[in-house]
Amino acid sequence: MARPECPLLAADVVIEVGSRIVLIERRNFPQGWALPGGFVDIGESVEEAAVREAAEETSLQVELFALLGVYSRPDRDPRGHTVSVVFVGRARGEPAAADDAKAAQLFDPVAPPAPLAFDHAEILADYVRWLRTGERPGPPLPSRARKRAALSS
Amino acid sequence: MARPECPLLAADVVIEVGSRIVLIERRNFPQGWALPGGFVDIGESVEEAAVREAAEETSLQVELFALLGVYSRPDRDPRGHTVSVVFVGRARGEPAAADDAKAAQLFDPVAPPAPLAFDHAEILADYVRWLRTGERPGPPLPSRARKRAALSS
Repeated sequence: MARPECPLLAADVVIEVGSRIVLIERRNFPQGWALPGGFVDIGESVEEAAVREAAEETSLQVELFALLGVYSRPDRDPRGHTVSVVFVGRARGEPAAADDAKAAQLFDPVAPPAPLAFDHAEILADYVRWLRTGERPGPPLPSRARKRAALSS
Repeated sequence: MARPECPLLAADVVIEVGSRIVLIERRNFPQGWALPGGFVDIGESVEEAAVREAAEETSLQVELFALLGVYSRPDRDPRGHTVSVVFVGRARGEPAAADDAKAAQLFDPVAPPAPLAFDHAEILADYVRWLRTGERPGPPLPSRARKRAALSS
């Protein structure tokens, strides 16, 4: 099989430390604040990539506990089409920036610094909605379910 | 940025037609029955890839309504490390095989043909558990939640 040309694959993590979350300030293009994460290596699972990248950038050992969503809009990464699998995890202690991160800090998830790189503002908004309602981002509801939802609202 | 080497990316769909689901018999290696799906193209979202591949292989127009999970074990595809984003969708009518599928048939999800290609038996088992319990596959629970679960069982 000729190797197909696919989008690049990344894993990012919303790391909860108590009621706050960790964001890093990126050292490389595109600059700005972002969720910790990075490209998945061949030979590692997306969960392993998420934990490895979180440790490299924040010095925290993260325990993943939920899959938030998969973000794949072709224009979400200015470097080229990159699909991100986003997890939610927990850690203890103070983050310490390293590797691709020049800073790592705790933030209230409803008051993150702006602007965030990539589509991370949208991902954080999805995370906050998921915390509050249990509703995950995902494909749109089918039309019948949408109609039922509209009727019952 | 040098283009990183990432796993290949696929999108697969559990297509519900009534209470049955659609499986295809693969024309190419690895042969056998499998969920409809295929590689994600650069420039399309994973949802678009899932709907496109489902239409190509089963001639059904699928409406996605849930993200089941992300499957990334490095040995899950004998052609090389491929990460699959798996959706659940609905369609009407009879599937008709085309493209990479030499057959497309409806099956009871708890009695699929065996063996299934890739890790699709595991994915189908996750789908059936999700139908019955609402529990999605995902990263393991953190140790504290696991301890609580163990204490309460």
